[in-house]
Amino acid sequence: MENFTYCTPTRYVFGRGAENQAGEQAKATGMKRVLVVFGHSSARKSGVLDRVEKSLEEAGIYFMELGGIDPNPTDPKVREGIEMCRANSLDALIAVGGGSAIDTAKAIAAGVPYSGDFWDFWAGKSTIREALPVGVVLTIPAAGSEGSGNSVITLLDGNRKISLRTDYALRPKWALLNPELTYTLPPYQTASGIADMMAHIMERYFSNSKEVEVTDRVSEGILKAIIGEAPKVMKTPDDYDARANIMWAGTLAHNGICGTGRTEDWSSHAIEHEISALYGVTHGAGLAVVFPAWMTFMSRRHPEKIAQFGRRVFGVISHDDKTAAMEGVMALKAFFGSLGLPVSFKELGIPNPDIENLVRNLHRNKGERLGNYLALGPEDTAEIYRLAL
Amino acid sequence: MENFTYCTPTRYVFGRGAENQAGEQAKATGMKRVLVVFGHSSARKSGVLDRVEKSLEEAGIYFMELGGIDPNPTDPKVREGIEMCRANSLDALIAVGGGSAIDTAKAIAAGVPYSGDFWDFWAGKSTIREALPVGVVLTIPAAGSEGSGNSVITLLDGNRKISLRTDYALRPKWALLNPELTYTLPPYQTASGIADMMAHIMERYFSNSKEVEVTDRVSEGILKAIIGEAPKVMKTPDDYDARANIMWAGTLAHNGICGTGRTEDWSSHAIEHEISALYGVTHGAGLAVVFPAWMTFMSRRHPEKIAQFGRRVFGVISHDDKTAAMEGVMALKAFFGSLGLPVSFKELGIPNPDIENLVRNLHRNKGERLGNYLALGPEDTAEIYRLAL
Repeated sequence: MENFTYCTPTRYVFGRGAENQAGEQAKATGMKRVLVVFGHSSARKSGVLDRVEKSLEEAGIYFMELGGIDPNPTDPKVREGIEMCRANSLDALIAVGGGSAIDTAKAIAAGVPYSGDFWDFWAGKSTIREALPVGVVLTIPAAGSEGSGNSVITLLDGNRKISLRTDYALRPKWALLNPELTYTLPPYQTASGIADMMAHIMERYFSNSKEVEVTDRVSEGILKAIIGEAPKVMKTPDDYDARANIMWAGTLAHNGICGTGRTEDWSSHAIEHEISALYGVTHGAGLAVVFPAWMTFMSRRHPEKIAQFGRRVFGVISHDDKTAAMEGVMALKAFFGSLGLPVSFKELGIPNPDIENLVRNLHRNKGERLGNYLALGPEDTAEIYRLAL
Repeated sequence: MENFTYCTPTRYVFGRGAENQAGEQAKATGMKRVLVVFGHSSARKSGVLDRVEKSLEEAGIYFMELGGIDPNPTDPKVREGIEMCRANSLDALIAVGGGSAIDTAKAIAAGVPYSGDFWDFWAGKSTIREALPVGVVLTIPAAGSEGSGNSVITLLDGNRKISLRTDYALRPKWALLNPELTYTLPPYQTASGIADMMAHIMERYFSNSKEVEVTDRVSEGILKAIIGEAPKVMKTPDDYDARANIMWAGTLAHNGICGTGRTEDWSSHAIEHEISALYGVTHGAGLAVVFPAWMTFMSRRHPEKIAQFGRRVFGVISHDDKTAAMEGVMALKAFFGSLGLPVSFKELGIPNPDIENLVRNLHRNKGERLGNYLALGPEDTAEIYRLAL
């Protein structure tokens, strides 16, 4: 087991009606003038935005709105939010939505007290010293941003999608998680969220760090819970308990508990990011295509941990590591398929992806080699893209 | 799944040499004048106390010492610590040790700023509004107090052992966890610690709350990791990775993650506390005796969750719940036995316990009925004590 530091100060309030605690939680964390950040009409239509704002009003908290955050959020909305906060002396952010709204709120929170351009942090030119406090009302369990210190923003100029990781600076002060708010998610979005949260665990799980049995078992346990609950939410979208388990799994998948004591990989995310950037696919669906291809590649060259995944998560019994690994990959593909997710470029609607371009962009953005489980050069990533055809 | 609030702000610094960060962490959390609380000569002999104090000196932090904390810590040392802090304007506590040192430090932290008697909080007469910050250097993985908001103190007058539970007030600001510090624990203490941490998970796991699959799987995963690593630390006391897994498991067992979304039980702890109080046995060893007896009782009356434990944790395959539950209990007893732990009063060296007295004390302290998985009256608890003979 490797040395680590782990601290998750976010206060999770979980259950029916949790969004009605926004005012109380905002007050308890010293928020006075808030920018409420959200996506599109669904937050208004569903009533969640109104309930959050009513709760803020009752707590005597002033707020303004910044709506219209798109999936794969970009820098212009961040800049707009920073200007709004500065012009109106807003001192906190509350995101109502999923990863896009949360990541945008985090970026605004980092940008407001900074004298330079907020992108400096994402470009690695500067480190966040202070940020406005962020609260979250989660409506899409997928990105895990409600419990993480990370924020993924795309710079429109040059189409650079970068994930900034901080230990503490950008962790939300609180996150309100009401599973009922996820009943109305379209099936494809529910399934993509499930693939995304599983990928967050697997990026940490596929590690060469030895003897991380507690972290391995916790990771396998959450994966098994997701695999058991996922068919229920697909079949019965208003199954409260199944939705609750999926929602809580999504938070634990990415708050760091599955990474304690080991070096993480994250090459599948990088490989997928280029597909999202070039073809605009849903991140989770892209991961359902990329991860099995990455695992297939690894099953041939470095099967150990893939085999353990097959055995412990899907109950594969083959003794030989390569076989067990491949059987695990097949089981995972069958599982994704059962949720209606694509597991190949073809099923993703991209029968002839421009692999040369994807590989070029990938290594331009991430360097000559990427990943830790097995470092991948351009020939390797090209093969993984081909395995995903 | 039931509604819950979950917040674990403690910063865990895990790995070799972690104790040398005491000064840095103390400084980062605003500590200036510290009371260092510890047990007996082993902390001095092993060198850990010296390293912690050197680290504090280097960070320019003033400190005084309060040693001599016994297992099952009592109120006189708490009062002594409160007086020391007040007389010397100390503003923080650092515990070096296991549950006894940490729980004493927490009680002092609560008592210093309070105008009444600190026992008011344990007696339920008052609620903690403020407490001095507490840091921890862990040397015994067992009680899990380094990650919890709880503190168990015994009032000498009347021999009342009470566990105070707070959500946040008493959670340590930071905990330094170096597995190397546990190499020299005597085998019986190592084994008792393992039983204690397993019991912390099981008290939460044996619940009637339905559909808590994520929490169940996480709990089962940590239990399985403990069961796999325990024989290694017994056989090779300086196996770093095995010690590391046991240490991290002990923290996760009690920081609340295994209780999210469900009602917990805790009757086995209450049943054991009376044995500790009357016969002065080691808490973890007492739990190794009580828990299988409690589970045997439940296997006959309410086997469901005991059967799930047997199947998922020990791989029992019997289809019938009562049989699977009893097989799970037998596997657990065999496991405890393999660590050299007692699993009966007889093996605990108490062939003829005063069950009448134990039951009387138990219900006088805990009320007519206790536990949530199945509420137990005096006839039930008497039967459980008898099952432990």
